[in-house]
Amino acid sequence: MSNTKQPASALSSPRFCNMGTFMRMPKSETAEGLDFAIAGAPFDTASSFRSGSRFGPNAIRNISAMMKPNNVLLQVNIMDSLKGADMGDFNVTPGYIHPTYDAIEAGVTSILEKNATPIILGGDHSITLAELRAVAKKYGPVSLVHFDSHSDLCDEVFGQKYNHGTPFRRAIEEGLIDPAHSIQIGMRGSLYDPDEHKLAAQLGMLLIPAHKVREMGFDALIHTILERVGDTKCFLTFDIDFVDPAYAPGTGTPEVGGFTSYESLNLVRSIKDLNFVGFDIVEVLPAYDHGEITAYLAANIVFEYLSILAVKKEKQ
Amino acid sequence: MSNTKQPASALSSPRFCNMGTFMRMPKSETAEGLDFAIAGAPFDTASSFRSGSRFGPNAIRNISAMMKPNNVLLQVNIMDSLKGADMGDFNVTPGYIHPTYDAIEAGVTSILEKNATPIILGGDHSITLAELRAVAKKYGPVSLVHFDSHSDLCDEVFGQKYNHGTPFRRAIEEGLIDPAHSIQIGMRGSLYDPDEHKLAAQLGMLLIPAHKVREMGFDALIHTILERVGDTKCFLTFDIDFVDPAYAPGTGTPEVGGFTSYESLNLVRSIKDLNFVGFDIVEVLPAYDHGEITAYLAANIVFEYLSILAVKKEKQ
Amino acid sequence: MSNTKQPASALSSPRFCNMGTFMRMPKSETAEGLDFAIAGAPFDTASSFRSGSRFGPNAIRNISAMMKPNNVLLQVNIMDSLKGADMGDFNVTPGYIHPTYDAIEAGVTSILEKNATPIILGGDHSITLAELRAVAKKYGPVSLVHFDSHSDLCDEVFGQKYNHGTPFRRAIEEGLIDPAHSIQIGMRGSLYDPDEHKLAAQLGMLLIPAHKVREMGFDALIHTILERVGDTKCFLTFDIDFVDPAYAPGTGTPEVGGFTSYESLNLVRSIKDLNFVGFDIVEVLPAYDHGEITAYLAANIVFEYLSILAVKKEKQ
Amino acid sequence: MSNTKQPASALSSPRFCNMGTFMRMPKSETAEGLDFAIAGAPFDTASSFRSGSRFGPNAIRNISAMMKPNNVLLQVNIMDSLKGADMGDFNVTPGYIHPTYDAIEAGVTSILEKNATPIILGGDHSITLAELRAVAKKYGPVSLVHFDSHSDLCDEVFGQKYNHGTPFRRAIEEGLIDPAHSIQIGMRGSLYDPDEHKLAAQLGMLLIPAHKVREMGFDALIHTILERVGDTKCFLTFDIDFVDPAYAPGTGTPEVGGFTSYESLNLVRSIKDLNFVGFDIVEVLPAYDHGEITAYLAANIVFEYLSILAVKKEKQ
Amino acid sequence: MSNTKQPASALSSPRFCNMGTFMRMPKSETAEGLDFAIAGAPFDTASSFRSGSRFGPNAIRNISAMMKPNNVLLQVNIMDSLKGADMGDFNVTPGYIHPTYDAIEAGVTSILEKNATPIILGGDHSITLAELRAVAKKYGPVSLVHFDSHSDLCDEVFGQKYNHGTPFRRAIEEGLIDPAHSIQIGMRGSLYDPDEHKLAAQLGMLLIPAHKVREMGFDALIHTILERVGDTKCFLTFDIDFVDPAYAPGTGTPEVGGFTSYESLNLVRSIKDLNFVGFDIVEVLPAYDHGEITAYLAANIVFEYLSILAVKKEKQ
Amino acid sequence: MSNTKQPASALSSPRFCNMGTFMRMPKSETAEGLDFAIAGAPFDTASSFRSGSRFGPNAIRNISAMMKPNNVLLQVNIMDSLKGADMGDFNVTPGYIHPTYDAIEAGVTSILEKNATPIILGGDHSITLAELRAVAKKYGPVSLVHFDSHSDLCDEVFGQKYNHGTPFRRAIEEGLIDPAHSIQIGMRGSLYDPDEHKLAAQLGMLLIPAHKVREMGFDALIHTILERVGDTKCFLTFDIDFVDPAYAPGTGTPEVGGFTSYESLNLVRSIKDLNFVGFDIVEVLPAYDHGEITAYLAANIVFEYLSILAVKKEKQ
Repeated sequence: MSNTKQPASALSSPRFCNMGTFMRMPKSETAEGLDFAIAGAPFDTASSFRSGSRFGPNAIRNISAMMKPNNVLLQVNIMDSLKGADMGDFNVTPGYIHPTYDAIEAGVTSILEKNATPIILGGDHSITLAELRAVAKKYGPVSLVHFDSHSDLCDEVFGQKYNHGTPFRRAIEEGLIDPAHSIQIGMRGSLYDPDEHKLAAQLGMLLIPAHKVREMGFDALIHTILERVGDTKCFLTFDIDFVDPAYAPGTGTPEVGGFTSYESLNLVRSIKDLNFVGFDIVEVLPAYDHGEITAYLAANIVFEYLSILAVKKEKQ
Repeated sequence: MSNTKQPASALSSPRFCNMGTFMRMPKSETAEGLDFAIAGAPFDTASSFRSGSRFGPNAIRNISAMMKPNNVLLQVNIMDSLKGADMGDFNVTPGYIHPTYDAIEAGVTSILEKNATPIILGGDHSITLAELRAVAKKYGPVSLVHFDSHSDLCDEVFGQKYNHGTPFRRAIEEGLIDPAHSIQIGMRGSLYDPDEHKLAAQLGMLLIPAHKVREMGFDALIHTILERVGDTKCFLTFDIDFVDPAYAPGTGTPEVGGFTSYESLNLVRSIKDLNFVGFDIVEVLPAYDHGEITAYLAANIVFEYLSILAVKKEKQ
Repeated sequence: MSNTKQPASALSSPRFCNMGTFMRMPKSETAEGLDFAIAGAPFDTASSFRSGSRFGPNAIRNISAMMKPNNVLLQVNIMDSLKGADMGDFNVTPGYIHPTYDAIEAGVTSILEKNATPIILGGDHSITLAELRAVAKKYGPVSLVHFDSHSDLCDEVFGQKYNHGTPFRRAIEEGLIDPAHSIQIGMRGSLYDPDEHKLAAQLGMLLIPAHKVREMGFDALIHTILERVGDTKCFLTFDIDFVDPAYAPGTGTPEVGGFTSYESLNLVRSIKDLNFVGFDIVEVLPAYDHGEITAYLAANIVFEYLSILAVKKEKQ
Repeated sequence: MSNTKQPASALSSPRFCNMGTFMRMPKSETAEGLDFAIAGAPFDTASSFRSGSRFGPNAIRNISAMMKPNNVLLQVNIMDSLKGADMGDFNVTPGYIHPTYDAIEAGVTSILEKNATPIILGGDHSITLAELRAVAKKYGPVSLVHFDSHSDLCDEVFGQKYNHGTPFRRAIEEGLIDPAHSIQIGMRGSLYDPDEHKLAAQLGMLLIPAHKVREMGFDALIHTILERVGDTKCFLTFDIDFVDPAYAPGTGTPEVGGFTSYESLNLVRSIKDLNFVGFDIVEVLPAYDHGEITAYLAANIVFEYLSILAVKKEKQ
Repeated sequence: MSNTKQPASALSSPRFCNMGTFMRMPKSETAEGLDFAIAGAPFDTASSFRSGSRFGPNAIRNISAMMKPNNVLLQVNIMDSLKGADMGDFNVTPGYIHPTYDAIEAGVTSILEKNATPIILGGDHSITLAELRAVAKKYGPVSLVHFDSHSDLCDEVFGQKYNHGTPFRRAIEEGLIDPAHSIQIGMRGSLYDPDEHKLAAQLGMLLIPAHKVREMGFDALIHTILERVGDTKCFLTFDIDFVDPAYAPGTGTPEVGGFTSYESLNLVRSIKDLNFVGFDIVEVLPAYDHGEITAYLAANIVFEYLSILAVKKEKQ
Repeated sequence: MSNTKQPASALSSPRFCNMGTFMRMPKSETAEGLDFAIAGAPFDTASSFRSGSRFGPNAIRNISAMMKPNNVLLQVNIMDSLKGADMGDFNVTPGYIHPTYDAIEAGVTSILEKNATPIILGGDHSITLAELRAVAKKYGPVSLVHFDSHSDLCDEVFGQKYNHGTPFRRAIEEGLIDPAHSIQIGMRGSLYDPDEHKLAAQLGMLLIPAHKVREMGFDALIHTILERVGDTKCFLTFDIDFVDPAYAPGTGTPEVGGFTSYESLNLVRSIKDLNFVGFDIVEVLPAYDHGEITAYLAANIVFEYLSILAVKKEKQ
């Protein structure tokens, strides 16, 4: 299928020209006719430590100009198979989480209504709750595949229910995700709660901390994810602090002892056969990045999302 | 009067030792017995562009280790005359302005109740509203001396009444400040409103934009401030973006064409005879600073506040 | 006149959303129906010292999200009066100056053909030669108002005729500018040539070095510019290194002892009555900037260009 | 056992508030009644290449606000079991090593006298000699577990006996450590001496360079450490340049080809059963750090020290 | 053999003194009597994304002051065995690739003529073509061992034949390298061409992408390299972006999912028995580096080159 | 007079090539036959706050590649008139001030013995004492012209006599300078001593603080300097923190409210007729610089020194 929305090739147009959309894709006001829609949710009001991830979407878009359309490992050209666009940023309200949630939910809904797959660029992790509201409205409770160094299952932070440490507690309470098929991977670092596994288990989730990943190995981990999620509809949320700060320094609450970029990309690629209904990448904070290495890794993770969609599309 | 709270002299204790309070002053839980109390309000949720000023108080405290107690120009040793302490940070709630306002108001009230003068380190400019609530509760409406590149008189930003662009509109509405004796100095840059002078005038304020300052000169400006405020009780709020970004790059909404550090310090010093009941310094954003030059300038502005208090104390 | 191309107001849409065009203006493929067109020329191949100004247009666009439409000093709203758009970047060829020159000339020509005023974001100063080729093709030789710390009148650099140190020598040779009504302002720093004044004079130009500006004062300078240019058609080129590195560190060949941001903006504004047919701003190099202060100053200079055009439009 | 010295939880008090002590612990003038005492030795005069580690203690303290009290892997809450405080910085004399050594020795002695365990934040590696003097005064010669990319066994550097390259040579000469139970791990990089193993062996030490660690694997390494040290009293010194510069760029003499943060934390945790009488972490140099990743790793290493102490305390 | 050109030992002369040549070696105008000659090719005109690698040679030289002469793993002192010097930089022409190629070719030729081994510091990867011209002039077509994340086999970039993405296509066409004994290692990331293996194979090259390296393991990789190259004369070119951006952020077109510094150094060391006739290290871009970690890794790679030469010399 | 030591012109050799000496001058082991000799004293052990100025000489040399030989304002080509060289760095002993003083004194003596004028690049301000020892040995007590934000007249710092805050106290005591013809300019900022003027006066010095300079104006200041020094032999020492941190952020103890680069260069140039016997520039600290603006200003100050010497030479 021919695709007139192919972005400019850097072989003819330098990659530092015309930045401003993901991979210099066309910008679109609507998801009509698209396979996927990329949108930013530049909201960092719910951050507990460093703020500034509101500039995450812009940073990812700028450096995504370096990306090219072929995924060698998945043997797919994302632009041959897919039609997509960058829809710009949702109209968040800095400082106010509930109107922001409404804007994000409305935005994701507008994408889903057109049967496009949403790929959201954060922003802090609080945004995922609003995305899941839109997703669950369409699909009912979905499975969650959650890569992160924190489980984000707190009940309250600073006495507040809505914060980047609480979205998945709320999502469970609101019936947006199905804990029984959801999985959280990579948690590590010092904790307030002595045993977050048990908390996750009490909530019905499966949580695999970083040291368990090291013990079990990636093959077993992938097997566990695939088995846990099965063929349920599934949302993938990737907090960039899953990755070690050496590879992803630009984030709000980094955690040492994490994963490499190679491991992270491989993990995402390895679960390509899941039935994804949406994706996000969150917590990229450019003011603490250097050499744009965090933003570029995030752009590559989005590229794996797109490749997964392209592989699926080609199979249809 | 002897003062056992004299901070360590760098002639005997290196200045990079024991950072953590302003000028390595003692930390205190109460303002009892103090002439002044320094406190942080590390809140940046109300920022419209760059967030991150929550780290402002920490940055100012760290570099304030470079300060020494004598003010040559005012011929005063702040530690000989004054008793003071650093009370640490108010217990703000990131992401939530109203509980934060309550915490700041309570904190400033606890200082004022002990008849100490509050000196607050921001945080974004929204914090000043909470400070003024505490001040007005004790003194009634006070005069405002406001150095800034923005007038912060918006009615709403992003459809919200409480934001770092609205505090003085709210302060007028709440009867916290007396516009007739208040003055705003240094406004500049492109605007949404074609004539902010008129808006300020409609609200009863006197606004002197940066280009008027250049036209009238500093002597006339100082005369105008002194005349406007007279002997009313007065609160001084200094937004670091009053200063040009060359001198103060570390801020959230910098504005080019501003004032130098020399001009800024002189201005504060020149109005030393006003009847100050409180001070703040806001919008220092360390993630965009370099060489700590913004934080150090802020520390020097606080030092001028302290010197003004010391001169007054000596005269008593 | 109503203008549907008004960019989103930051009072309703946060300024860190939807970056990617200057002041988040609409993007347009054509200059048809526009008063002005902004375009990038991200070319740094001709740089003699630091390279990297290819990222200048992107940096200026990103931070230009902070700009608002009213110019208080000129009492004009640029969006009320003018229709304009960001046309993205010319399709430069990194590493190759002649095909790049062709692309820039063609691009500027396409703007001029529609009777829009071109405002070009560099890129190193070599780009101005290509712009002048397009301008002269339409208007014949024009006057040049040139703010810079270097005169860029070299005959050859590294044995090459085309370089960012030679554009105005070439422009004179090619008959693109009229030296008799052209003026160069702000030159300073150590030199290879002991007397660049004489060289400029031999070429028919008027060169006013920085120390002469200090001696004569800005009023006399403005008078001199106005008198020199008169009512001829005139192109304004502003090399950001005209400004002191304290205010504009992000550039390729900074020169100490320069002008402040306030002086620079005032200068541009003060010659608003000249008959401008085009503008550029060059040599912004983000990798050496910090806190985006250089890029933001450049954005403000462009804003003054737009304001000048708006004032003129309103007078028509 | 109840512990009133529990630091503020970030669930109620934001972690960027009231920085200034390690993990925002209470500050104490005395080690009386404490299980452990943290103190800074901000001395970098003995650095051979980059200076600036005098700001190391401050940087570690600031970012340590991110730490929480539970160690999941060791299943311990450090605050439940232990009483501890931050004693601030020893009164070093910049530029003068011998008075500094006296101050550090006195400070560590004052901690040991109260039967608290000292945890010292450097500063360059020269400080460890002074710490060992205090330790040996109480316990006699102790075993050394030394993680580093350099063996620091030089006899002289620049013709001087006291430098950050010589502390363990001096410690052996002064009888402060027992080489027969001491071990040095991680040495790598180019050398002046063709075979530092032999030098170490001549001095009675066991040195395991980085490439041997890779060959033998971590299990064998841990076994070797445990066997070498046995149940002797032991001091752990960790030079942050043991870690690869990707994970710890902020240091004075980085060495490529090093260990990851995960490996480093695991190593420390794995030798928890040794009989530790003191710890330090040295050579954190904030001016070369970015995103605070080095300082945060150092804070996590200290957290492992604390966890080891807590596990031991709970067993008692 | 005694060598009076031994660089100053940091044990007597601090390493931050007298920087300016690689490892503070003597500077020489000629390669006469030398075993190796180091030279810079500070050219970045052919860069497709970020420019600035023109400052690479200077950055590598500055930080190389940290290097010492003994290679522990290869048991060799490079200064005992070898005579060498830093010949400074070739006289490149910024902005113009063909005169630059002439200068580099002439410079490398002048080294080869004296039977010294050239070690060239880039600069972008385009420079290798010129080096190979000089090498092939002396030796005929040589084998290429190429570490990189990109294959640099494009036919054209931006419609141009000479660019940092095309040097090895040109080298094959010009008969400078023998594809049948050449090998490219480490390619990864998104691509324009869906299968660069096939392209490489069509050109006669063997290309082993990063994921194949992970699959086959380093032992098999080393075996493959040794077998492929055999005893042919061989040129080693190392693009620093072979290494992951966590370890080497300072480069123009970084690619995530790369190799560690440990793996990279080991790889180079493991092929020490090949018959090397020249080396380069390219694409170090200091403006995007931090803590000099990229430049220091590059300096260590050069040190491995020198060690390989020293081992060979000792065997003679 | 012909001068074969003319450095490479950037018109033919790019300025980023062959860095490593000041203005890419020849390096020389001896001052024989030279008019001036530039040398580094990379010593920062005596710094009281930030260390790191040991990298000052290297940073100044690197960026000095941007300088060209003609001084337009003084109408002189420094290379036509003068013979000079860069002698590299004195062999300082990091961590030890007295052996360092010996090395600096010996180095400066070796320059003076050849009747060359020494120009020393620091390093912290403690180095000037050693320079003055060499100078006084040849000339007897000399006058001091001292630009700085601190008077450096302390008796002791941290209980030590030798530190970067004490050199001129020691110089007076040792009879190296003649206070009656010496002058200190630019002092400002908070102080330990309430009146440093009086202290200076008691020591026989004339101290003009920054605010007095603003009051009296530069013409009066220059007159005062010229009158004070008269025709005595004079040493000029310039601490870069004389300049405001906006213009010179890269320094150890910055002081706000300082002078601009334009004012600073003018001041030095304006006292060109004094009878200078030596110069230094101190306290450049690259780790806190950005965009190399501090180092470049320092290089320009050295260029003014050279120009002054050239003017004098031409008059002979």
